[in-house]
Amino acid sequence: MIFAGIGIGSAQQADVQMLREIYTASLKEGKSYDWLNHLSNQIGGRLSGSVQAEQAVTYTKKELDVLGLDRVWLQPVMVPKWVRGTPEFAYIESEPGETNNVPVCALGGSVATPAGGIKASVIEVQGVEDLAKLGKSQIEGKIVFYNRPMDPTLINTFEAYSGCVDQRYSGAEEAAKFGAVGVVVRSMNLSIDDHPHTGSMSYGELELTERIPAAAISTKGADLLSTTLKLNPEIKFFLRQNCRQLPDVQSYNVIGEIRGSEFPEEVIVVGGHLDSWDLGDGSHDDGAGCVQSMEVLNLLKKVGYQPRRTIRVVLFMNEENGLRGGRKYAEIAKEKNEKHLFALESDAGGFTPRGFSFDCTQEEFNRILTWKNLFEPYLVHQFIRGGSGADIGPLKDQGLVLSGLRPDSQRYFDYHHAETDTFKAVSKRELELGAAAMTSLVYLVDRYGFISSSALPDRQ
Amino acid sequence: MIFAGIGIGSAQQADVQMLREIYTASLKEGKSYDWLNHLSNQIGGRLSGSVQAEQAVTYTKKELDVLGLDRVWLQPVMVPKWVRGTPEFAYIESEPGETNNVPVCALGGSVATPAGGIKASVIEVQGVEDLAKLGKSQIEGKIVFYNRPMDPTLINTFEAYSGCVDQRYSGAEEAAKFGAVGVVVRSMNLSIDDHPHTGSMSYGELELTERIPAAAISTKGADLLSTTLKLNPEIKFFLRQNCRQLPDVQSYNVIGEIRGSEFPEEVIVVGGHLDSWDLGDGSHDDGAGCVQSMEVLNLLKKVGYQPRRTIRVVLFMNEENGLRGGRKYAEIAKEKNEKHLFALESDAGGFTPRGFSFDCTQEEFNRILTWKNLFEPYLVHQFIRGGSGADIGPLKDQGLVLSGLRPDSQRYFDYHHAETDTFKAVSKRELELGAAAMTSLVYLVDRYGFISSSALPDRQ
Repeated sequence: MIFAGIGIGSAQQADVQMLREIYTASLKEGKSYDWLNHLSNQIGGRLSGSVQAEQAVTYTKKELDVLGLDRVWLQPVMVPKWVRGTPEFAYIESEPGETNNVPVCALGGSVATPAGGIKASVIEVQGVEDLAKLGKSQIEGKIVFYNRPMDPTLINTFEAYSGCVDQRYSGAEEAAKFGAVGVVVRSMNLSIDDHPHTGSMSYGELELTERIPAAAISTKGADLLSTTLKLNPEIKFFLRQNCRQLPDVQSYNVIGEIRGSEFPEEVIVVGGHLDSWDLGDGSHDDGAGCVQSMEVLNLLKKVGYQPRRTIRVVLFMNEENGLRGGRKYAEIAKEKNEKHLFALESDAGGFTPRGFSFDCTQEEFNRILTWKNLFEPYLVHQFIRGGSGADIGPLKDQGLVLSGLRPDSQRYFDYHHAETDTFKAVSKRELELGAAAMTSLVYLVDRYGFISSSALPDRQ
Repeated sequence: MIFAGIGIGSAQQADVQMLREIYTASLKEGKSYDWLNHLSNQIGGRLSGSVQAEQAVTYTKKELDVLGLDRVWLQPVMVPKWVRGTPEFAYIESEPGETNNVPVCALGGSVATPAGGIKASVIEVQGVEDLAKLGKSQIEGKIVFYNRPMDPTLINTFEAYSGCVDQRYSGAEEAAKFGAVGVVVRSMNLSIDDHPHTGSMSYGELELTERIPAAAISTKGADLLSTTLKLNPEIKFFLRQNCRQLPDVQSYNVIGEIRGSEFPEEVIVVGGHLDSWDLGDGSHDDGAGCVQSMEVLNLLKKVGYQPRRTIRVVLFMNEENGLRGGRKYAEIAKEKNEKHLFALESDAGGFTPRGFSFDCTQEEFNRILTWKNLFEPYLVHQFIRGGSGADIGPLKDQGLVLSGLRPDSQRYFDYHHAETDTFKAVSKRELELGAAAMTSLVYLVDRYGFISSSALPDRQ
């Protein structure tokens, strides 16, 4: 053991040095940005079941193959396949013949409209809880327009998202129960612009015949619709979309690992999700998390660090509309009786890293906090207890520590699930700093584990 | 005094509430983004002495006039007027007739080339210190190409800038002493792209006849030039630019203030610089700082706070190529025997605020640190001692506390002094968060001052 018999000061000094080397390697000779360039610009949006998703599997496996890891493999998983079809079309009809087109997109999982579209009156609500107050008499035969905006005063924009997303996820299911013929949902976006933002939705237990089409409308379109409705509640809304759900298809999680030199049976997972929505190229959500996770293994090799535990990168398939990859990975891990110590996900965009959230015990958190000062020179300052990432969530019953990278969240919802989520919206340095922060945390977990309260490496 | 007799806990609670109100006002009904839209898109780049700079004076004064401040005025200052002329043109000539155009721009203050341009051999150096080693024999008659890049491993990109900018500022002066006929400087940019970045330069004590033209070359152009030189040191470089220096012209600092209710003679200044370079529209440098500074006064009024001291916004003219506005302001303040307590500048881009740097005594800094916890909910975490801003620097001999807003610096040099510094590169939320952070700090300084060590307002 390298540090046995050496004081804590020296161990910390070695860690200071290691983090500096990790950051230098990421910023000077990292691969994350080039990988993302390929994923985004040569492949593009990677919706589960699409050709692009399969290209991304092939590409990332090939790139992991050349890193000289101990093992790289594909883990089969059946995924849903939903396709958008031809571009959606919608307009507000103030009077017969007087129309304003508005930008819309089908929500992921939505049914199509009839081929000729639907045209109906609109009732605006601020959330699903308004439906019961209005009752069937005021909803039946209409399009329900969910228009509760994200709260701009929340500093963490994910909280603002959480406060709205039920409209998108459950809006159609709930409105259908009151006889609505369709729903239009204000995009989950803090900017006022022309880009509709898609995302997953559910019909719950509704029969196929009861399902109604659901679309997102751009924030600017939502404001126009709301204003128009105030002037004249009798206006009509036209929506046409021909998305559909196809049978499940075979896909894969892409996995690579460096075997641990001392505790190979203890697994540390770092990952993101390889699938994305189809409107943009999925650079922030979650191409960034994928290439950062691949970079963790690359950087550990670059700086010549030999992990004590097994460090595994997992590029999960189908986070966006099914979470099948995350569930499959946890299922197989359980079957194989693998011991997972730690899982870290990056799925909040490739922005400047501000910190990490940890889903763990207080004792484990106390241990983690002893590392916080090492991140100060890199302005990674926020170590909090909280959620981690959707894909690693299914591992939770293994009793491991889960963590999520916390990048700056201010711009995330400008791009999230929209055509604006493209490579040029990613800053190379911000992406690389995130990869370095993740690598640093993985290094510390690998070296010290969570159990001993000593700063020296534990032997367990 | 509102808080007299109330415990510290209550005072802090009132501050917590005040900061929340300030942030809410900025994010929900702030004016900064609309102001910047006008400055950037209706006016554009505002080089000292230009029509646009004068339009910016008129516009910002008009906007301050409608805020209902106690006084708004223009402070006359004579400024230099340098004009770029027709677009610059440059190419690398590998062999006669075989040329590659490269993007260049004249450095601010440079002389023109002869009308037909200059064509000469090139000698690449890593800095001015290389010149003496090479000597006149290897430099005379050539174009000196300064190609030391910014260091990507520095987390604070301003440090990387400081490590390079002497090439731009002094490169021509030094090279001229060795008989060079021109200089080409690698743009101060961490990205590899096609945008040349201008910026100020000086000829020092050189006579007019000794001055040689100086241009910046894009980072991609610099890499091409360097590679080409390695293949064949005999290649030639062609440069044509017809910029020139005109006589000084009249301009103005734009100033507005809310008079203090208790200590009107104590002045707190908040500001940015109204001039910008001409290639982009100066949105980050420093339209952002101007509108954030105006917003400080607007937000204090919005939340109904009556300042104890005089809060003054100053939009300084001519930071980029002369600092005449900053010097004039300090000169007049001294003449009028004004007492300045605190000056805060925002001139590092409209990005997510990470903290503040303070140029102050340790005792003052200790006092400031007692406020730090109030900023934690807003992720403003970096309170350090350090530099403030160029425009407020001349006030320093008044013995006041100087401070600079520290936004996230990762993207700043993608835009700085280049055509890419445009409105669309600014995030509305990031800009607004910066304005709120500045307003919060100004509020705390106004309420508590720096002298008493108690958390209660001091009476002085």
